Amino acid sequence: MVDTPDITLPGAQHGAAFGAPPNEANRPSSPVVHFGPEAPLRLDSGRSLTRWQVAYQTYGKLNADKTNAILVCHALTGDQHVASTHPVTGKPGWWWRMVGPGLPIDTDRYFVICPNVVGGCMGTTGPASINPETGLPYMLDLPVLTIGDMVRAQAMLLDRLGIPTLLSMLGGSMGGMQVLQWAATYPDRVFSAVPIAAGARHSSQNIAFHEVGRQAIMADPDWRSGRYLVEGTNPRKGLAVARMAAHITYMSDKALHEKFGRNLQDRDKPTFGFDADFQIESYLRHQGMTFVERFDANSYLYMTRAMDYFDLAADYGGRLANAFKGTKTRFCAVSFTSDWLFPTAEIKTVVKALNAAGASVSFVEIETLGGHDAFLLDEPELFATIRGFLGAAARARGIQ
Amino acid sequence: MVDTPDITLPGAQHGAAFGAPPNEANRPSSPVVHFGPEAPLRLDSGRSLTRWQVAYQTYGKLNADKTNAILVCHALTGDQHVASTHPVTGKPGWWWRMVGPGLPIDTDRYFVICPNVVGGCMGTTGPASINPETGLPYMLDLPVLTIGDMVRAQAMLLDRLGIPTLLSMLGGSMGGMQVLQWAATYPDRVFSAVPIAAGARHSSQNIAFHEVGRQAIMADPDWRSGRYLVEGTNPRKGLAVARMAAHITYMSDKALHEKFGRNLQDRDKPTFGFDADFQIESYLRHQGMTFVERFDANSYLYMTRAMDYFDLAADYGGRLANAFKGTKTRFCAVSFTSDWLFPTAEIKTVVKALNAAGASVSFVEIETLGGHDAFLLDEPELFATIRGFLGAAARARGIQ
Repeated sequence: MVDTPDITLPGAQHGAAFGAPPNEANRPSSPVVHFGPEAPLRLDSGRSLTRWQVAYQTYGKLNADKTNAILVCHALTGDQHVASTHPVTGKPGWWWRMVGPGLPIDTDRYFVICPNVVGGCMGTTGPASINPETGLPYMLDLPVLTIGDMVRAQAMLLDRLGIPTLLSMLGGSMGGMQVLQWAATYPDRVFSAVPIAAGARHSSQNIAFHEVGRQAIMADPDWRSGRYLVEGTNPRKGLAVARMAAHITYMSDKALHEKFGRNLQDRDKPTFGFDADFQIESYLRHQGMTFVERFDANSYLYMTRAMDYFDLAADYGGRLANAFKGTKTRFCAVSFTSDWLFPTAEIKTVVKALNAAGASVSFVEIETLGGHDAFLLDEPELFATIRGFLGAAARARGIQ
Repeated sequence: MVDTPDITLPGAQHGAAFGAPPNEANRPSSPVVHFGPEAPLRLDSGRSLTRWQVAYQTYGKLNADKTNAILVCHALTGDQHVASTHPVTGKPGWWWRMVGPGLPIDTDRYFVICPNVVGGCMGTTGPASINPETGLPYMLDLPVLTIGDMVRAQAMLLDRLGIPTLLSMLGGSMGGMQVLQWAATYPDRVFSAVPIAAGARHSSQNIAFHEVGRQAIMADPDWRSGRYLVEGTNPRKGLAVARMAAHITYMSDKALHEKFGRNLQDRDKPTFGFDADFQIESYLRHQGMTFVERFDANSYLYMTRAMDYFDLAADYGGRLANAFKGTKTRFCAVSFTSDWLFPTAEIKTVVKALNAAGASVSFVEIETLGGHDAFLLDEPELFATIRGFLGAAARARGIQ
């Protein structure tokens, strides 16, 4: 199934100058499916992509009945490398605690697929991908994308892979938005669904934080109006600041306090300077610096924009329950007590709409200090919840 | 008492290139007191300033007994123009609702003084002020400052103005930190004190947000390692991003939702682009752009650093109550329910310490959506609280 495209970036300097993302964008370290004019991706903006691709990873084996497939949807800065070594960082996949043999999403039982989303930078068509019409990276010529577009692309991937329905699908944050969008758009293909740390819309405060990140990137002169990939620059500083601001929102105030407090970094007294005196400062700087090694700045713009545009109720006449009318999908909605980016109230709105639509839904609020990022952390209650919910779904579907 | 210094910035281009702050830093539109080698400002860093100045504003009249003076301490981006037209923006002073004839801080009864803090950019010695030793702006040659340094400078100003004691002192946010520091350092000079939306230390999350702002400024190539004032540039973009990030933290999630929701800016449908589609985006951009017209980027670095360093308990052997041992000052501590930068728990820690020290303290938590910035807004309960508390203090001190 591995199929790496033979596209070379213009100018040999690109690999060195921009780190891995442009390379992975065009030569991903994972299987790829190509789509041509026979299968255009129709976008919510009214535009479409006629030559595009999806890079994805799989774990486990599809059973003969094709009933054990589980789609995992990644978050803003995630990718398809769910449970295998990341090709750029060399670190374990972002959900290594969750997906694998004997783990809650048990790859001895289930066939797990995770595609990189459209607009991403790890092999699915995104702003760092080569635009076949110009031979140069799309950069800002790629149409602005939505969660709906991401989901439509995923459905076309499943068609191509011959997977008619999903036993389940799971995702946190932007991944949870995709889960909800899937359940609304393709209810007959989704037997069960687990949105985690997400909501049916992006709040004003969340848009605000994203806008700060975008402005930080666009303020960096190395962004070059989005054309840095062909101008030999890279807006590292702007992207790092964007990441730093976002990263604060992923953690709870209490966890930051417990982890860092007001502790100084490798010193006894403040230096009375502007170096990173406090541990939290050097931690954030590190987060910013490592992120830019693996992510494309324009992709960050597209991903944040897609999340900001997400408003599922608005697409269904302003009534969220309409999005789930007549659904037979079983839902398990999960929130975390210390998540202030998608507080429990946001997922409760979804749960109420599901109830109003007569859907089968269970709701779990997990007590944790982990904040929004708790879905990535060692959270035994989350593991138990997902293991149990998937097991019940598998039994209901007659999977051994 | 007006005394504008006769210092001219090197190069006539500065006024035009950098807007008002460097001009106000050296030719403030308010009275100024100069200090020479006979009255050095000794700093917590171990360094000192031997030729320095404080710009300040006053409202009302000092009575014959000198018992009706009230010190107002401004916040991070505030200044001495409390209740009079701002010389740069032309807008009313930042506490125009609170300070004036017949208002809660009644200038018919009280003599109100507000100095620009050291490290500021509105006339008190700060990084944009001319360093008398070089004839150029200090820029980063100014020592890093603390809340303790700000307070020491204010005490020296009061000495020079012949004001032995204060009937009261009030301040929100960084202003509240100064109030607490004053009460700890000069208990005999403070008859009553009102810290608002503040705490005895800056939390890890607060340090994190400040660090993002500093990194945004320092990432701007126009910052020029802090030397923009002599290199003919201005890190406007970086400072604007810093302001945007901070501004989100000053408002409550609910207030943002009520004010902006997901409303689009002057359009019916999203544009599928990166312009400011949502009202919250254009509001934030406006906040960033107007801020850079009146504030000096290096001053922002110094102010945020001073707040980050603030940890009153640490200065008193780790026990906050020790900071207030034996105090006779009457306290009124105020918090706001929707303030997530200085949540009520922070000021409660102060209240507990004051109780442990046997101090007279009342505590008011005001129910509001106004967030951290509620101290600047139209908050009738805040006005009533302060009017009542000051009236009681005045009666106790025998003021008619």
